[in-house]
Amino acid sequence: MKKIGVLTSGGDAPGMNAAVRAVVRKAIFHGMEVAGIYHGYQGLINGNIENLDVGDVGDIIQRGGTMLHSARCLEFKTEEGQRKAISQLKEHGIEGLVVIGGDGSYRGALALSKLGFPSVGVPGTIDNDIPGTDYTIGFDTALNTIIESIDKIRDTATSHERSFIIEVMGRDAGDLALWAGLAGGAETILIPEVPSDIDGLVRRLEQGYERGKKHSIIIVAEGVMSAGELATLLKEKADIETRVSVLGHIQRGGSPTGRDRVLASQLGAKAVEVLMEDRGGVAIGIRNHQVVDYELSEAFNKAHKAELSMYTLSQELSI
Amino acid sequence: MKKIGVLTSGGDAPGMNAAVRAVVRKAIFHGMEVAGIYHGYQGLINGNIENLDVGDVGDIIQRGGTMLHSARCLEFKTEEGQRKAISQLKEHGIEGLVVIGGDGSYRGALALSKLGFPSVGVPGTIDNDIPGTDYTIGFDTALNTIIESIDKIRDTATSHERSFIIEVMGRDAGDLALWAGLAGGAETILIPEVPSDIDGLVRRLEQGYERGKKHSIIIVAEGVMSAGELATLLKEKADIETRVSVLGHIQRGGSPTGRDRVLASQLGAKAVEVLMEDRGGVAIGIRNHQVVDYELSEAFNKAHKAELSMYTLSQELSI
Amino acid sequence: MKKIGVLTSGGDAPGMNAAVRAVVRKAIFHGMEVAGIYHGYQGLINGNIENLDVGDVGDIIQRGGTMLHSARCLEFKTEEGQRKAISQLKEHGIEGLVVIGGDGSYRGALALSKLGFPSVGVPGTIDNDIPGTDYTIGFDTALNTIIESIDKIRDTATSHERSFIIEVMGRDAGDLALWAGLAGGAETILIPEVPSDIDGLVRRLEQGYERGKKHSIIIVAEGVMSAGELATLLKEKADIETRVSVLGHIQRGGSPTGRDRVLASQLGAKAVEVLMEDRGGVAIGIRNHQVVDYELSEAFNKAHKAELSMYTLSQELSI
Amino acid sequence: MKKIGVLTSGGDAPGMNAAVRAVVRKAIFHGMEVAGIYHGYQGLINGNIENLDVGDVGDIIQRGGTMLHSARCLEFKTEEGQRKAISQLKEHGIEGLVVIGGDGSYRGALALSKLGFPSVGVPGTIDNDIPGTDYTIGFDTALNTIIESIDKIRDTATSHERSFIIEVMGRDAGDLALWAGLAGGAETILIPEVPSDIDGLVRRLEQGYERGKKHSIIIVAEGVMSAGELATLLKEKADIETRVSVLGHIQRGGSPTGRDRVLASQLGAKAVEVLMEDRGGVAIGIRNHQVVDYELSEAFNKAHKAELSMYTLSQELSI
Repeated sequence: MKKIGVLTSGGDAPGMNAAVRAVVRKAIFHGMEVAGIYHGYQGLINGNIENLDVGDVGDIIQRGGTMLHSARCLEFKTEEGQRKAISQLKEHGIEGLVVIGGDGSYRGALALSKLGFPSVGVPGTIDNDIPGTDYTIGFDTALNTIIESIDKIRDTATSHERSFIIEVMGRDAGDLALWAGLAGGAETILIPEVPSDIDGLVRRLEQGYERGKKHSIIIVAEGVMSAGELATLLKEKADIETRVSVLGHIQRGGSPTGRDRVLASQLGAKAVEVLMEDRGGVAIGIRNHQVVDYELSEAFNKAHKAELSMYTLSQELSI
Repeated sequence: MKKIGVLTSGGDAPGMNAAVRAVVRKAIFHGMEVAGIYHGYQGLINGNIENLDVGDVGDIIQRGGTMLHSARCLEFKTEEGQRKAISQLKEHGIEGLVVIGGDGSYRGALALSKLGFPSVGVPGTIDNDIPGTDYTIGFDTALNTIIESIDKIRDTATSHERSFIIEVMGRDAGDLALWAGLAGGAETILIPEVPSDIDGLVRRLEQGYERGKKHSIIIVAEGVMSAGELATLLKEKADIETRVSVLGHIQRGGSPTGRDRVLASQLGAKAVEVLMEDRGGVAIGIRNHQVVDYELSEAFNKAHKAELSMYTLSQELSI
Repeated sequence: MKKIGVLTSGGDAPGMNAAVRAVVRKAIFHGMEVAGIYHGYQGLINGNIENLDVGDVGDIIQRGGTMLHSARCLEFKTEEGQRKAISQLKEHGIEGLVVIGGDGSYRGALALSKLGFPSVGVPGTIDNDIPGTDYTIGFDTALNTIIESIDKIRDTATSHERSFIIEVMGRDAGDLALWAGLAGGAETILIPEVPSDIDGLVRRLEQGYERGKKHSIIIVAEGVMSAGELATLLKEKADIETRVSVLGHIQRGGSPTGRDRVLASQLGAKAVEVLMEDRGGVAIGIRNHQVVDYELSEAFNKAHKAELSMYTLSQELSI
Repeated sequence: MKKIGVLTSGGDAPGMNAAVRAVVRKAIFHGMEVAGIYHGYQGLINGNIENLDVGDVGDIIQRGGTMLHSARCLEFKTEEGQRKAISQLKEHGIEGLVVIGGDGSYRGALALSKLGFPSVGVPGTIDNDIPGTDYTIGFDTALNTIIESIDKIRDTATSHERSFIIEVMGRDAGDLALWAGLAGGAETILIPEVPSDIDGLVRRLEQGYERGKKHSIIIVAEGVMSAGELATLLKEKADIETRVSVLGHIQRGGSPTGRDRVLASQLGAKAVEVLMEDRGGVAIGIRNHQVVDYELSEAFNKAHKAELSMYTLSQELSI
């Protein structure tokens, strides 16, 4: 290939810029040209495309968000939209595409590949919910943002001897809640992968208070229920008073951690290698510290699994 | 005086520990003993009191929250409660009291002083809403916590070209919203000290979009309205889509900034000096970089004023 | 004036970008044009000048360093160089100049003003060493960077019960050392404004160890002596073992704090107001929370004073 | 076993406290008692031992350093010292020992095990240089501390268009330099595992300057040479000017990252499980996300390997 394109799609994640930088520089290092496609698939359809040089991705490895912007695009879900996209790509002399994003972004890459345009998916999402890769780009940064928040809330929880419910992101995947809960020393973690046992939670809290525990921190993934709903349940069932904190959008931003920058660099570079072999329809991932590529379809068919040994461990350590 | 007591009361604020450290060490430096009173006025009534030595306040200058804990106390609002408190103080040989906290805590200190027990107020609250002092302990840290959150949310706002409403603390005082809004480059700031002009806000936003602005950040102090209410208003009035983020409890915690540690050290030490002169019923503050003391009653009678030149400036700079 | 220029000069300081943003937007708000001059006075002589629009200073308020770059320039110290600069300014239709920097940058602004070109100085330096303003832009951020480093080193000092000497910036001014030392809970602070008493320091350290102190943190401003020299002195004089840490260049960088962003916004905007009145030869500063302007020459003739009450306080609190 | 002991030894590392917490709580959860041994092996010989309860390790998961302190101990390198240690352990009813530390600490644990006292090693060191485990506790935090410093220095490097040499820890292992260099976008990384090619480095730098590169960041592991030596070499060989920054002791401290807290929790808990099976002489590690245990001797006999694919990648991405 002589020229490839790169876009970011879906919710932004810290490290997306580091991945874009890796794609651009790796490709240029190997003698190819690179086009940046702005505003995701919508921008692709609209021809919002500009060449990127080495210097255009200088001084971005440390920045949150995505310099290529991201956007939703209903039109791209239709085959008509996809064909428009391919026309644009061809018009710009682009022969392969790197898509950095989550689940929905991958479906788009697969559609393009099936229509004959080689496209590769790089996992960029804070949720860590893409099957086939041990970690996604952005997860480690979001984890650290959450535990910094837990640390701050713990100051107040300890000072006032109050219990707090902290709601974190994760509609279907509990990884952020699980890791942050274990790392934050939370007494209880509620994740979508484990059926919620509110009676058991009440019992644990009451036993804690009996043993002299003065405050508790409960982490709940948004996919289980909202922090507000849980607070109401605890109040109604057992007259347990809690304060509520919904971390919300701060979880997505910020300068990426070392891990996320390294991962983004590795996966972005690998995506270019795959395209250099004229292959498409594949996802890039990391498994046991090895950078791998695998069928994009696997990223949909397999289910993401939470590390339940961490769940058990967090319960043992929060006695 | 041979022995003084110190307590923290009201919402915790970063720097309270630095202030406790200053009180303890300054007093010991001048040959006095110091008793730590745990759990605020409630702990005082209950006799939850222990002597503090130099080492007991080592390694705490950098910690958020308060090692003395804080608590609400209805009983202390009665004269009976206050007399119980004085009995406890006398029983422990304590001759003067330093109270670190906000508005409500000051009322308690004044009540004790009126009953003949010399008490001094040190302003510990993130809200910066205590008349008579330019800054309160904790304000600077909370300000920086908020702007770090704004910076993170801006990553997403820029990437997705979406507008965000960020709700910050401040029931009666808009200082946090005003400073954070100016420092965070917010397009609009809503504070209790300035009547909200929603039509004007809509006009500003629409003009911005017309000029090509792709996203806006709006800061609203909780005392004006909730971020959710504002989002609904903007949607209903002008079909403007916004995302909402309520920063909540993370604003209270965290390691204090340099300014807050220095301020806490200065004000805590000054409180001891005042007690060494057998004076009570006074509040400690900083005015034009000078540490001052003044009648506690002034902290209630005067109104806190927001720096409205900053409000005007933020509008000029967010064109 | 219809068009003004802005440049940064001397060592970079966090908040310089926020000041540039304020200058640009304030001027545009009042109907003027603004030219950015790149690479300081050298760039000015070379005509490295480009117009700046509102969007050019978007998303920079939170960035360290200076987007206008900075550089040394020997040529500008000559009148010939200064006249070249004025030619360039006139060629670009620029009628007034805002110079953001320290001591040396101010001398340049004064020279231009004396040659008839109205120039205004805005204090951008981490050292806080410019007479006539209570604070300089960058000082607060550097202070917080230093205390974060002290906090980290304290972890090791406490764990290993070792004493550390930490060298911080400040050739002539001890403000960073003084504030950071007090805020970091340092046992001893050495600043240029107070004659060093090494024998007294040895005595203090030995008394501390006798009282059971297990470790000490000593802050030394580079203007006093290097950390290495002090370590050698302590070893030779009293066989006291210390570890040494030179913070160096990390003190200059990083995202500016809330205070620095607000200060930069206020001072940058004020500089524009002064130029709008066709005045030059003045410096902008903050005194007792009021933005002021004063003769540039005052910034040289007066001496910077350290707040020695903080020095005394730090000794009382580090018993 | 009914009672186990835990100590930290060697250089402190962020996450040691989280590991201590895990050991204590896991053991208590399974009905055992736990003794904390203060000041490493020296404290063990001296009988500096106290029982730890659940609450004693509350609120420490987020703290840097080690609450058990650490110290050097020559005496423990002798069999006599080791026998004294075993006497102390027996006297306190302790039947198994968890040692958290690096290389030297492991040798001690092996010695005790050989003398019949079951001891387990948990890898706590920022250097990531223990064979048999993919990561050591503290590495991730130190990595992030270093890249925050690089980000700050980059602000100055960019503003002034100067090149910087940053010296990081790593006497025998280049992992910190390698990861931080890749994550920090460094142009050049020098690690002990790759022979230094100064001529090649000079060529790379000169080519960069020719291509228009204005500044470079060079990371050097202390085991290769000091930053000062490298600066002198570059100056002498090719008249290349650089600034030097030695990060030093700040790399050891600070609140542990999410990864380090999770890893510390997992490895600390596993150490208890191993002792519950009456096994000693083993090291705990993580391999491909699985917690494992293996012969302590393997941690000496095998050599640590750096991930050289990262080295190659960093060169490709820093064109």
